[in-house]
Amino acid sequence: MSERILGVLGGMGPLASAEFMRQLTLLTPAERDQEHVPAILWSDPRVPDRVAARRGTGPDPLPVLVRGLRGLEAAGCGAIAIPCNTAHGWIVGMRAATRLPILHIVDAAAEDLRRQGVRPGTVGVMGTVATLEMGLYQDGLRGGGWDVIVPPPEDMARLVSPAIAEVKANRVEAAYAPLAEAARSLVARGATAVVLGCTEIPLGVAAGPALPFPVVDTIAALARVSIAWAREGATPAAVA
Amino acid sequence: MSERILGVLGGMGPLASAEFMRQLTLLTPAERDQEHVPAILWSDPRVPDRVAARRGTGPDPLPVLVRGLRGLEAAGCGAIAIPCNTAHGWIVGMRAATRLPILHIVDAAAEDLRRQGVRPGTVGVMGTVATLEMGLYQDGLRGGGWDVIVPPPEDMARLVSPAIAEVKANRVEAAYAPLAEAARSLVARGATAVVLGCTEIPLGVAAGPALPFPVVDTIAALARVSIAWAREGATPAAVA
Repeated sequence: MSERILGVLGGMGPLASAEFMRQLTLLTPAERDQEHVPAILWSDPRVPDRVAARRGTGPDPLPVLVRGLRGLEAAGCGAIAIPCNTAHGWIVGMRAATRLPILHIVDAAAEDLRRQGVRPGTVGVMGTVATLEMGLYQDGLRGGGWDVIVPPPEDMARLVSPAIAEVKANRVEAAYAPLAEAARSLVARGATAVVLGCTEIPLGVAAGPALPFPVVDTIAALARVSIAWAREGATPAAVA
Repeated sequence: MSERILGVLGGMGPLASAEFMRQLTLLTPAERDQEHVPAILWSDPRVPDRVAARRGTGPDPLPVLVRGLRGLEAAGCGAIAIPCNTAHGWIVGMRAATRLPILHIVDAAAEDLRRQGVRPGTVGVMGTVATLEMGLYQDGLRGGGWDVIVPPPEDMARLVSPAIAEVKANRVEAAYAPLAEAARSLVARGATAVVLGCTEIPLGVAAGPALPFPVVDTIAALARVSIAWAREGATPAAVA
């Protein structure tokens, strides 16, 4: 039984946070409640919009993110998982504000690529405009030997961004077809795997038939490294 | 946007808590993150087993429950929801330990019976042995005009208790058939609706075809009253 308490800085969006808690449970080998990972989910959907902030059209989310970190520290958590890729654009400010280790979602995605046997080469990444513009995955996965391709601006505008909005409005089924089309297009351009680099995207992709190529669900990937931390104190190899 | 923060005392079991957070999101009318309910989930699966404690074969869970309440108070929560029916057997001790209102799951179930148009009469309740022995629903629903029947001991031992254990071990599909059989048997004995009075039970029942009679999912019922509290400050009419 773990004495380590995982802090989950969530609410971005809340459905992705709930799915993270579900994966944290389902991926833990356990026969009874007491073998599962203790965790505190700080689900604050009021964190200012990360994409708008990046574009300079909305307030800075960092103060609200730091308020959540303080709450998780006060509650006795020993490490932080953040089931929102775009929020990792503020990782420098968050790391400066807390002494707790933050289990980086790009490190988790890299571990999952290795787990699935995806060799160094070209991988596709779908995410919010802000995540892709900030280069979170382009920079982060380069250290593991992967070159990243992303959807062209017209696919982002027509397929990926609207699908993310559908999930945030609780319409996961409507998100499947556009996300599948954007992912297939990345594979047609040479990607050997596709990283679902926004935690809303796996929820949409799960609403239809499985895609016929390796896919990294960043919610499940972050849950896996969180379980390893809770059980062994391990933190993922830093690539990001 | 709500300024009220919901405190969720969870981890009993953790899969039910994750499903509660999912229902809290899906049942909230929202177009974007910022319209969802702020919530803090204190998921502590280390709470001593409630059924064993009731039987006198395990430690008292109250101290660990109160520790969670203290944490949720410190985090700024304004009300408490507990997605575990059996834990409500310690409601007197919990209410004595906190000034925050606790949204009682039996009150939530009564509201859901009314919402579904289930008239006063006989309803069936499935739950843990401890929940049924403590009379949480038998006493609680009487005030609303409902008489409660429960599975006989042989159905509890052969069907309901093993199915709850399957869900706690992450095997939700294995739980469907025994739960469906126990529910059908309550209807055959005159129940006009069946209350799934253990938060593991809706997870098992959702793993197969919908049951052909009114069913109260106590996870969703608690989520509905929690949303009403967050949006309007409303607390459910007390029957329990």
